[in-house]
Amino acid sequence: MSMTQIYLYQNEFVAKEALHISPEDRGYYFGDGLYEVIRVYNGKLYEAGPHFARLTRTAEALRIPLPFTEDELSAQLEKLIQVNELHEGSVYMQITRGAAPRSHPFPASAEPILMAYTTSYQRPVATLEEGITAVTTDDIRWLRCDLKTLNLLPNVMAKQHAMDQGAGDVIFHRSGTVTESSSSNVMIVKNNVIKTHPANNLILHGITRLVVLRLAKQEGIQLEEAAFTVDELLNADEVFITSTTAEVTPVIQIDGKAIGSGKPGPLTRQLQTAFEATIPSK
Amino acid sequence: MSMTQIYLYQNEFVAKEALHISPEDRGYYFGDGLYEVIRVYNGKLYEAGPHFARLTRTAEALRIPLPFTEDELSAQLEKLIQVNELHEGSVYMQITRGAAPRSHPFPASAEPILMAYTTSYQRPVATLEEGITAVTTDDIRWLRCDLKTLNLLPNVMAKQHAMDQGAGDVIFHRSGTVTESSSSNVMIVKNNVIKTHPANNLILHGITRLVVLRLAKQEGIQLEEAAFTVDELLNADEVFITSTTAEVTPVIQIDGKAIGSGKPGPLTRQLQTAFEATIPSK
Repeated sequence: MSMTQIYLYQNEFVAKEALHISPEDRGYYFGDGLYEVIRVYNGKLYEAGPHFARLTRTAEALRIPLPFTEDELSAQLEKLIQVNELHEGSVYMQITRGAAPRSHPFPASAEPILMAYTTSYQRPVATLEEGITAVTTDDIRWLRCDLKTLNLLPNVMAKQHAMDQGAGDVIFHRSGTVTESSSSNVMIVKNNVIKTHPANNLILHGITRLVVLRLAKQEGIQLEEAAFTVDELLNADEVFITSTTAEVTPVIQIDGKAIGSGKPGPLTRQLQTAFEATIPSK
Repeated sequence: MSMTQIYLYQNEFVAKEALHISPEDRGYYFGDGLYEVIRVYNGKLYEAGPHFARLTRTAEALRIPLPFTEDELSAQLEKLIQVNELHEGSVYMQITRGAAPRSHPFPASAEPILMAYTTSYQRPVATLEEGITAVTTDDIRWLRCDLKTLNLLPNVMAKQHAMDQGAGDVIFHRSGTVTESSSSNVMIVKNNVIKTHPANNLILHGITRLVVLRLAKQEGIQLEEAAFTVDELLNADEVFITSTTAEVTPVIQIDGKAIGSGKPGPLTRQLQTAFEATIPSK
């Protein structure tokens, strides 16, 4: 069965093949825009509120006026999920500053451009069960990693670097201080205490990171938002990454060194179970 | 007279209105690509060789296989100049990694996408004569500023910051060390010696910067490729920026403080004259 994929473009629902982006879209030549990816479980948007809040925060920082209210966007995305008959997967949306002849300053009159589509996929059961490997690499990104922008080339290059090394992902560090992964946050466990980098300008403030912070509290697990070193990472009892698509994924080996026992640890398992309980049912 | 603008897209010459970019172009959602802007004087490409060399170097660093030889691209750009009847202005070209469903690693099979167009404009005679003002700002960009990529959001935000301050441009510094401007290199003159940041990973290796290095040598002006501080910048005898469109533009005031006499200085004028002599005639 092959179904035409329907995109949301501005306020229109358009078949993918009929959707044409302007060569003057500032997203195309400057990456001048922002995005969000919201998980869809059982046809429902997951943690939509925090995603919309982050979208708004990034738009404000980039000074891109959002062409809709949160309620309007939410309603349109739900319609998009319906027309694409999406059950499991995610909604991707991006907003660029608009289309105008190429010039660095904000254009005098350009309307922001919204594009959104859905992707169907299942939960990553194999990697959730078995974990992934990772390699550490220098974090050479800009100093506003808290903004979810379309400038993702360093993340692309880092992810490909991991693939080339036969690893599942990278773990970034700045001069030995671990920040995050190429598209997820990193947490370590040592002596039953979780540590993860504080939500400042050096990391993306992940929504799943927030969920895990809440779950750790609920479960009575001690968690510190504190930076840690590559040395602490490699000598942790457990390591896991969190993101919208990775959920809580164990990292069992880094730079060829087994983490803890080399298998997903007990606190990682406990948080995975707690996370699973937050997934909305039909 | 309004003429339809013709774009070069892959190997086709297409009217702008008929050119449609795929929503799955990695340039659109990752900024996964590179670009060059080549000046056109009297219908001729200026310093095309160094631009092509930089294009090739960036493509190699990003591991984007170029879908053409330098001679092929050069011939196509010359054709583009002809069909658009361009006399004065520039050719913009960008190459993205190709179109594929959104996923960070390089796609298994995606062909790089070339897009190029021309823009008609005159030399900036007023600012060349009178100079511009600038404001200093933190350089928060990534650590591969030597690559001419489509990830230009920090440059966009910086340029807009300058506009908001009523200044012509920004001058970036990292912890007090001057790097460059939002889309040009910066040079200072003190006691008849020119200083400009070394061509490492922290600045774009400007083609006009190279031309000026050559001209300074020809003119017997001492030039050091050495980093300098914001303090040295503000207390310089002369400051100027160099770029493909700005050529050699004097900076006469920075952060509200007059540079030297507050007027373009003698070495700046000497280099402007020398630069002008390199412009190809009809």
